[in-house]
Amino acid sequence: MKTRAAVATAAGKPLEIMDVTLDGPKAGEVLVEVKATGICHTDEFTLSGADPEGLFPAILGHEGAGVVMEVGEGVTGLKPGDHVIPLYTPECRECFSCLSRKTNLCTSIRATQGQGVMPDGTSRFSTLDGDPILHYMGCSTFSNHTVLPEIALAKVREDAPFDKICYIGCGVTTGIGAVINTAKVEIGATAVVFGLGGIGLNVIQGLRLAGADMIVGVDINPAKKEMAERFGMTHFVNPKELDEDIVPYLVNLTKRRGDTIGGADYTFDCTGNVTVMRQALESAHRGWGESIIIGVAPAGAEIGTRPFQLVTGRVWKGTAFGGARGRTDVPKIVDWYMDGKIEIDPMITHQLTLDTINEGFDLMHAGESIRSVVVY
Amino acid sequence: MKTRAAVATAAGKPLEIMDVTLDGPKAGEVLVEVKATGICHTDEFTLSGADPEGLFPAILGHEGAGVVMEVGEGVTGLKPGDHVIPLYTPECRECFSCLSRKTNLCTSIRATQGQGVMPDGTSRFSTLDGDPILHYMGCSTFSNHTVLPEIALAKVREDAPFDKICYIGCGVTTGIGAVINTAKVEIGATAVVFGLGGIGLNVIQGLRLAGADMIVGVDINPAKKEMAERFGMTHFVNPKELDEDIVPYLVNLTKRRGDTIGGADYTFDCTGNVTVMRQALESAHRGWGESIIIGVAPAGAEIGTRPFQLVTGRVWKGTAFGGARGRTDVPKIVDWYMDGKIEIDPMITHQLTLDTINEGFDLMHAGESIRSVVVY
Ligand SMILES: NC(=O)c1ccc[n+]([C@@H]2O[C@H](COP(=O)([O-])OP(=O)(O)OC[C@H]3O[C@@H](n4cnc5c(N)ncnc54)[C@H](O)[C@@H]3O)[C@@H](O)[C@H]2O)c1
Ligand SMILES: NC(=O)c1ccc[n+]([C@@H]2O[C@H](COP(=O)([O-])OP(=O)(O)OC[C@H]3O[C@@H](n4cnc5c(N)ncnc54)[C@H](O)[C@@H]3O)[C@@H](O)[C@H]2O)c1
Ligand SMILES: [Zn+2]
Ligand SMILES: [Zn+2]
Ligand SMILES: [Zn+2]
Ligand SMILES: [Zn+2]
Repeated sequence: MKTRAAVATAAGKPLEIMDVTLDGPKAGEVLVEVKATGICHTDEFTLSGADPEGLFPAILGHEGAGVVMEVGEGVTGLKPGDHVIPLYTPECRECFSCLSRKTNLCTSIRATQGQGVMPDGTSRFSTLDGDPILHYMGCSTFSNHTVLPEIALAKVREDAPFDKICYIGCGVTTGIGAVINTAKVEIGATAVVFGLGGIGLNVIQGLRLAGADMIVGVDINPAKKEMAERFGMTHFVNPKELDEDIVPYLVNLTKRRGDTIGGADYTFDCTGNVTVMRQALESAHRGWGESIIIGVAPAGAEIGTRPFQLVTGRVWKGTAFGGARGRTDVPKIVDWYMDGKIEIDPMITHQLTLDTINEGFDLMHAGESIRSVVVY
Repeated sequence: MKTRAAVATAAGKPLEIMDVTLDGPKAGEVLVEVKATGICHTDEFTLSGADPEGLFPAILGHEGAGVVMEVGEGVTGLKPGDHVIPLYTPECRECFSCLSRKTNLCTSIRATQGQGVMPDGTSRFSTLDGDPILHYMGCSTFSNHTVLPEIALAKVREDAPFDKICYIGCGVTTGIGAVINTAKVEIGATAVVFGLGGIGLNVIQGLRLAGADMIVGVDINPAKKEMAERFGMTHFVNPKELDEDIVPYLVNLTKRRGDTIGGADYTFDCTGNVTVMRQALESAHRGWGESIIIGVAPAGAEIGTRPFQLVTGRVWKGTAFGGARGRTDVPKIVDWYMDGKIEIDPMITHQLTLDTINEGFDLMHAGESIRSVVVY
């Protein structure tokens, strides 16, 4: 079939909107009509050329929602008409990792996904001239239609609006999941969130959901304060306005009655900056503070600290897709949204069409959007 | 009173055996007759001058066992004749950290302990001329008699031999506790232990106790293999004999049936070398592997890795005194020894007297001892 897509032809170039050819689903695969897609930092990371593993030409986008149009041979869990959210972290429920019950990082299609192809080693996308175009993160939601393996689709309720729940395909689940699945924050905890963008705001609402007492937000852009407060931030810190080092400042700020040391129970990096990652670790409480890395660092960048920070009880962790098992957890998060337990609408600051998708990247660069969503 | 002690007069010099003056216990303090003491790497670290926080002159030693001789005002939990193990990590059961139930790092006397004095800010030790000598880690077990706060003494059963259980005052508890309290290793786990010295061997026996399936030991000294096997090591790796990088080698070695990735469930650094700490982290299994730092690094040394290692699910932790709450856990470990659940005797390779204590440091430097114990 023919469909319309925004193609990343080369690193650093704007996406090109064009008609492309999409082959139908093979065995175990599903054809999805994408109804809406968010534009995430990770798409920008790849498009900019900063991602050393980025491949071109490709159809980016990994934060979508849509409807099943056709299923390939052997697909039993989905049927045409089902509403779905594509999963860049699939859940096969059969590989060693899925069966471990200790991680969400399913490995069943990891190799081919990284190469921009379907599990059989080929791409379903091509130009009208027949030149192949690669998939991206196994999703390619910047195309009006796309093909995914069945294990990379979460079936969700049908009354949920596509233009909002698409954000659950990455940002919402990553932020809330980091709190719930990775940090396992308990009621009454103190937390510091570094970076109040699309991920940080969802960490903040995750912390509110988990019942944290003190939710400190840190951002060098003071314009981020208002929205973060709306989602539950209790204290805002702009490192640029401090006269002292950020770490001792935060350690002191998070000192509770009776405590002689200070430091947060949980800290989260949502910036991707390795210097911030170290600050986050060192602002965690001696003895038990856990620091969770969510941000994706530039290629080759390394984190460092004195090992004494860990020997005296701090824990350094990270999270991918918020530790969520996509097919199991994503439908629940959609329910939480529909039940009003979490909010999404105010974070979707801009709505675009496929033809104006490049504006979404401009808004991101200008720091003006939380999330831009393309509605097909 | 007058007692006999080995005094560290200056960094890099052998200990000097001499008579010293010891003042009696003040309120909340206890006078202990030390019956035996181990010589630990940390004593050597300080004596060598490598520890930037080391103070002189001081009476080192922190791995002892002895008998209560006299108690100060207000001491209610101990009486003369009680058998005790000094605790460099006290357990006051009242400070914010103790009450958190999340850490063993009691903070009630942290500041004064670091300054080499008792909680009232003064030392009980002095030369016969009246010049003060400092305490060390709040213990100073290289003296035949010493004074400690009541909260820094674990009361243990009276039938346990001092020359063996003194080792529970540091090495045994650190190694076994790292497995049980910090890593919380489960039955069937795979593990890699880097460094098969006095700490590493106890990690190994902790892993055997916890029911680990595969216990890989790594040491650049092949002479360490035999003893480690005796304590439960199932595979030995000498990095110097490998043709390939140690990390991919270990990742492959720990790959289980059905797994396509490999890596150990738990890894432990017992070397204090920051390069080894990174190898330990990166040999942990993607998705869930935890790496625990036990070794103490040289001043200023830093650990580093790519944050992707953590984002893809590895956890970096550390442990001090094996996460053990001294007054609560140490008496239980003594019971385990008396019940034959853990072994200590083969690790005590050398017995010395206070007069020959400097030989213990020579044996350590030569890599010939696991533990040298001074019996008074
Ligand atoms: N681990 C995962 O599964 C996962 C998933 C999605 C995104 N990410 C990553 O999360 C990170 C955040 O994504 P986002 O969409 O929220 O980005 P964003 O650009 O919307 O937000 C980043 C925020 O960090 C702030 N910031 C930048 N430098 C800072 C500093 N030095 N100190 C304090 N604040 C600073 C910025 O002002 C901005 O508000 C990115 O690195 C992205 O690639 C990770
Ligand atoms: N965290 C704590 O509470 C705590 C308590 C006690 C001791 N420690 C620290 O634990 C560490 C180990 O103490 P120990 O008494 O067992 O020392 P040790 O000297 O007896 O053992 C160290 C072992 O590491 C091996 N080794 C050295 N470099 C290596 C390398 N590159 N690769 C592999 N093996 C290597 C040595 O051959 C030796 O067998 C020290 O740093 C000590 O200060 C920590
Ligand atoms: Zn994303
Ligand atoms: Zn799987
Ligand atoms: Zn020690
Ligand atoms: Zn305490």
